[in-house]
Amino acid sequence: MSAPPYKLASRAFCPHGTVIQLGRVRIGGDEVVLMAGPCSIEGEAMIHQIAAMVAEQGGTVLRGGAFKPRTSPYSFQGLGERGLKYLRDAADEHGLLAVTEVMEIGQLELVAKYADILQIGARNMQNYPLLREAGRADVPVLLKRGLCATIEEFLLAAEYIMAEGNRRVMLCERGIRTFADHSRFTLDIAAIPVLKERTHLPVLVDPSHCMGVRDKVLPMALAAIAAGADGLIVETHPKPEQALSDGPQALLPQQLAQLSERLEQVAVAVGRTFTKSPVEVTSP
Amino acid sequence: MSAPPYKLASRAFCPHGTVIQLGRVRIGGDEVVLMAGPCSIEGEAMIHQIAAMVAEQGGTVLRGGAFKPRTSPYSFQGLGERGLKYLRDAADEHGLLAVTEVMEIGQLELVAKYADILQIGARNMQNYPLLREAGRADVPVLLKRGLCATIEEFLLAAEYIMAEGNRRVMLCERGIRTFADHSRFTLDIAAIPVLKERTHLPVLVDPSHCMGVRDKVLPMALAAIAAGADGLIVETHPKPEQALSDGPQALLPQQLAQLSERLEQVAVAVGRTFTKSPVEVTSP
Amino acid sequence: MSAPPYKLASRAFCPHGTVIQLGRVRIGGDEVVLMAGPCSIEGEAMIHQIAAMVAEQGGTVLRGGAFKPRTSPYSFQGLGERGLKYLRDAADEHGLLAVTEVMEIGQLELVAKYADILQIGARNMQNYPLLREAGRADVPVLLKRGLCATIEEFLLAAEYIMAEGNRRVMLCERGIRTFADHSRFTLDIAAIPVLKERTHLPVLVDPSHCMGVRDKVLPMALAAIAAGADGLIVETHPKPEQALSDGPQALLPQQLAQLSERLEQVAVAVGRTFTKSPVEVTSP
Amino acid sequence: MSAPPYKLASRAFCPHGTVIQLGRVRIGGDEVVLMAGPCSIEGEAMIHQIAAMVAEQGGTVLRGGAFKPRTSPYSFQGLGERGLKYLRDAADEHGLLAVTEVMEIGQLELVAKYADILQIGARNMQNYPLLREAGRADVPVLLKRGLCATIEEFLLAAEYIMAEGNRRVMLCERGIRTFADHSRFTLDIAAIPVLKERTHLPVLVDPSHCMGVRDKVLPMALAAIAAGADGLIVETHPKPEQALSDGPQALLPQQLAQLSERLEQVAVAVGRTFTKSPVEVTSP
Repeated sequence: MSAPPYKLASRAFCPHGTVIQLGRVRIGGDEVVLMAGPCSIEGEAMIHQIAAMVAEQGGTVLRGGAFKPRTSPYSFQGLGERGLKYLRDAADEHGLLAVTEVMEIGQLELVAKYADILQIGARNMQNYPLLREAGRADVPVLLKRGLCATIEEFLLAAEYIMAEGNRRVMLCERGIRTFADHSRFTLDIAAIPVLKERTHLPVLVDPSHCMGVRDKVLPMALAAIAAGADGLIVETHPKPEQALSDGPQALLPQQLAQLSERLEQVAVAVGRTFTKSPVEVTSP
Repeated sequence: MSAPPYKLASRAFCPHGTVIQLGRVRIGGDEVVLMAGPCSIEGEAMIHQIAAMVAEQGGTVLRGGAFKPRTSPYSFQGLGERGLKYLRDAADEHGLLAVTEVMEIGQLELVAKYADILQIGARNMQNYPLLREAGRADVPVLLKRGLCATIEEFLLAAEYIMAEGNRRVMLCERGIRTFADHSRFTLDIAAIPVLKERTHLPVLVDPSHCMGVRDKVLPMALAAIAAGADGLIVETHPKPEQALSDGPQALLPQQLAQLSERLEQVAVAVGRTFTKSPVEVTSP
Repeated sequence: MSAPPYKLASRAFCPHGTVIQLGRVRIGGDEVVLMAGPCSIEGEAMIHQIAAMVAEQGGTVLRGGAFKPRTSPYSFQGLGERGLKYLRDAADEHGLLAVTEVMEIGQLELVAKYADILQIGARNMQNYPLLREAGRADVPVLLKRGLCATIEEFLLAAEYIMAEGNRRVMLCERGIRTFADHSRFTLDIAAIPVLKERTHLPVLVDPSHCMGVRDKVLPMALAAIAAGADGLIVETHPKPEQALSDGPQALLPQQLAQLSERLEQVAVAVGRTFTKSPVEVTSP
Repeated sequence: MSAPPYKLASRAFCPHGTVIQLGRVRIGGDEVVLMAGPCSIEGEAMIHQIAAMVAEQGGTVLRGGAFKPRTSPYSFQGLGERGLKYLRDAADEHGLLAVTEVMEIGQLELVAKYADILQIGARNMQNYPLLREAGRADVPVLLKRGLCATIEEFLLAAEYIMAEGNRRVMLCERGIRTFADHSRFTLDIAAIPVLKERTHLPVLVDPSHCMGVRDKVLPMALAAIAAGADGLIVETHPKPEQALSDGPQALLPQQLAQLSERLEQVAVAVGRTFTKSPVEVTSP
C-alpha cells in the first residue's frame, strides 16, 4: 500500500494514538466520552436544565447550537452570541465542557471565546478556508464527516486543520447518504475501525442525526461503542415536542439515563470504561 | 402511518416476536446465536476441523457453501452434493445445525435433504420463483438482504416465502452498496432496530462479507449484537491463505475465540446471553 | 490496465462491435432501434392496438410481460402462456419482433417458443443458473443491469451467458439505486460510453422504469441516444390509467409519436439513423 | 402535492422561466450556452490561448479557477488575484464573459470585481453564510449542486441567495456520488428535466468533473443538451498533460471543436440553437 496523502493525521505520525486532555476530560483514552445536549440552545433555563441532566448521567461535554446551518433560509437560525453565553454558563455551573458549531470564519473568534471545543459541521467538512482558520485557533476541533465524504477526504480535511498548527482534532462519524430510506442517513459503523487504523485521532459518533427518531438512537449509540468509538455526541431535550429544531430525535431524560447505564456495560465489554457517576465535580 | 404492504412478516402479525426452535437451538430468543464456518466447503477434513472450532467457541450452526454464486463464471463454483454430505457429517459429529445456500429451484430438494436451514443469498433476494418454492419447503430459511434492497422490499421477499406456508424465516443484514470505498459493502447497522420494530422475524447479521478483511470483522460483529441482532453468521477458516474463496475475510481460529468471548460480554450488556461453553453436547 | 475478468464480452474479443441481426432488424448497427410496448400484456385487443402504434412510429420490437417479477406477492403476476400467444400474434400481424421476460429456468423453453428475444430482468442479473441456461438457448438475450451492479459485474453476467455458447447478448441500462429521490432510479447515462468502450455488445437503454412518470421519459430517451446508445426499450399504453402495472410511466400514443420524431433528429445529430416510416412491412 | 419549501426558486414564482442576460449572452433562452476554459488559470499566455479557442468554437463564457478548493492542503491552490486579472483580460480580448469560483466571503468583493459570473462550488453548496453574501452581490451566481444534495436541498440553497435579493442564479448539475466506480461521479441527467419542472432558473451541466477522462466528456455533454439543459461548462486545455490540475479530463482543442459541431446539431434536434460562429464580436 502506498503512503496516504495525509501526513499529520495518519496513524504512522502518532502510532500510540492521540488523547486530547481538557481539564479532567480525556478524549481518546480508555474512558469513552459522552457529549450531550440540545440541537439548538433555545433559552437560558432550558440549557441549564439540560446541563444538569447531562452531568447527572455521566456526560462531560455539553453540546448545543448557537449558530445553526439550516437547509432552509426560513428556519430558526439560532440565538447567536446570547446562546453562546447561556451554553458557557450552563456548562460551568455543572462542571461540563462546552462544544458548539462554528459556521464561518467571521464567527470563529467569538465562538472560541465561549466554547471548549469548536464543532465544524458535515456541510462544512470541505470548507477549506474555515478549516485553515480553525487550524490557527488554540481550541480543539470536533470535525464531522461530510454526508458523502470518503475516509480519505475526511482525513485530508483534518489535515487542513493540522497543517496550520492545531493538532487537537477529533473526528465524528454522523451518517452518510445512501439509497436506504429507513433512516435519514446510514450510520457508517465500519468507518470506526477503519479510522482507528488509519489515524491516531479520537473518533466520536453522532447517532442522533442519522436516525431521526429517538427510539433508534440507543441501539446505534451502543453499536458505535462496541465497534470501538471513543465517545458519543447525542441530542437530548426535556420536552422534545417543544424543541425549535430536530425535536423528534432528541432523547428523553429517561432515555439518556438508559443510554448512560447501557453505555457503561458495553464499554466494559470491549475493554473501555464509562462512569455514570463521576467523582464529585470540582472546578477544573 | 398506513399499513405496510406485507402482512405475515409484519410485527403486528406476531407482536411478541418469532422464535425458531431447532433442537436445542432457539433463534430469536434471549440467547444470541453464532453461526460460523468456511465460505466454501473445500474438503472433508477441513469442514470437520472447522466444525470442531465452531462448537468449541459456542457456535451452534455450521455454515458452508456447496453451491456458490460467483460473480465470474470462471471461479470455483463449489463441491455440490459431495460438499453437502461433508457439511452434514461434520455438523452431526459436533452437535451443530447446518446452514447452506440454495441457488435454484432444482437444487432445493437436494439441499433440504442435508441442511437444517436453507440460505437464500443476497443476489437471489428477489428471485421470486425460488422464494415461492422455499415457501413450500419444510425447512427454515435464512434470507439475506439484497445489496440495494430497501427494508420494505426485504420484508416483501420474506412475505413471498411465508405466503406459501413456510413461516420459519430469519432475516440477515449483510451490507449494502454505497459510495463508501473503505469497506466492500456498508453494513447497515440501523437496519437491525428498524427490522426489529417492523417485523417479528429473527434478525441476523453477516459481518464478514462487507468488511472483506478479517481484522475488521470483530468490531462489526459486536456492534451488530449491541444494536439488537439475534445472532451472527461469520466466516472462519483454519488456514485462510489456502481458502478457495474469500480467504482474506475468514476469521483465524484465535479470532473466532476472541469473538466468542467478547460476544458473551456484549450480549449481557444489552440484556441477552451467549454461552461460550454450552452444556455437554448430546444428540439433539 | 490489467486484462478484465471477462473475455468473450470484452471489446478486445470483437473490436469492430457486434451486430445482432434478426430478420430486417439490426441491433448494434448504424440504425438505432426502438422497442416499445406495455409493461404487462393485459389482453388480446390491447396488445394488438399497441403493436399497431409501435409499428406506426418506427418501432421494430414489441415488448410486453407475460411473467412479471413483482415486489409484492399480492400484485398482478402476468397472464403467463396466454399472454405470450397474444404477444406473438400481435407482433406477427404488425411485422414486429417480440421481446419478453423470462424469470426462471422452467419458463425458458416456453418463452423461447414465442419470443424473438429473451429478456432477463435487473433482479435476475446475477441469477447464475438462469444465465447459464439462457446461454444454451438459440435466442438472443436482452440482459438488464442490476440495480446496483458495477459495469464489471454486468459484463461478467453477460459472460455467464456467452460462455455457454450464446453470443447474441444485448445489454440494457435501466437505472441504478442512489440517494437521489427525484427519480425512482438514477439512469446512469455514463454507463453507455463506458460500455461501448469495454464491450462489443449492443447497448440499449430503458428510460421508463427509472423515471416513473411519463413526462420525463422523452428527455431521458433522447439523452441516451445522444450518449451513444444503440436503442431504446420504452413502455407505452393507449390508456395508461387503466394499466394493471406501472401505468404512470407508460407513454401516451402522442408521446410515443413525439419520441419517434425527436429520436430521428437526435440520431442524425450523432451520426446514426432512425426511420420513423420504414419501408412497407413484408414478412421477414 | 404540497407547496415546496422554496418560494423564489420555484417554477410557480416565474412560470415562463428566467433568462439571465449579460451583454449579448442570454442564459436560459433558446440558445444553449457554452462555457469553457481550464480548470485552473496557470498563466497569462495560456489563458489567452484558451480564450481564443473558446471564442472560435462558439463559446461565450470563459471559465478558469483562481482560487481552487483542493481536497489536499498540499495541492496547487490557484494564482489568486493575479489569476483573476489574467482571466478578465483574456475574456475581454476575445469578447467573452468570465466565470470563476469564489470560496469564501472574504474573497467575494475581489472576485466580483473581475468576474461576470460568480461560481459557488459543489463543496460550498450548503455554505450558508457564503450563499447569503452572494445574495447581496450584484453579480449573477452559478451554483453547483453538492455531491449528495437532493433537488430540494439544491433549490433551498438557491433560495438562500435569492432571499437576499440576487435573483440571477443559474444551477449546475455536476455529478453525484454513488456506488458506480466507472465514473468519478454519476452525472444525474434526470435532474435536468426535474429541475426544469420545479424551478424557473437556468440549468447548466458540467460533464468534465464527473467523467474524469476527456474521451467520455462529449457523449455526456450531448446527452445533457438532449435532456434539456440550457448550457454546458467544460474544461479544455491546449496541452492537458502539462495542466497543474485535472489535466486528464480537459478536452483537447480538436475535441472542443467536435463538441461545438455536435452541440449545434443536437440543439437543433431538441428545438434549441447553438451558433458555432457567432456574428463578429464587438465590445458589448
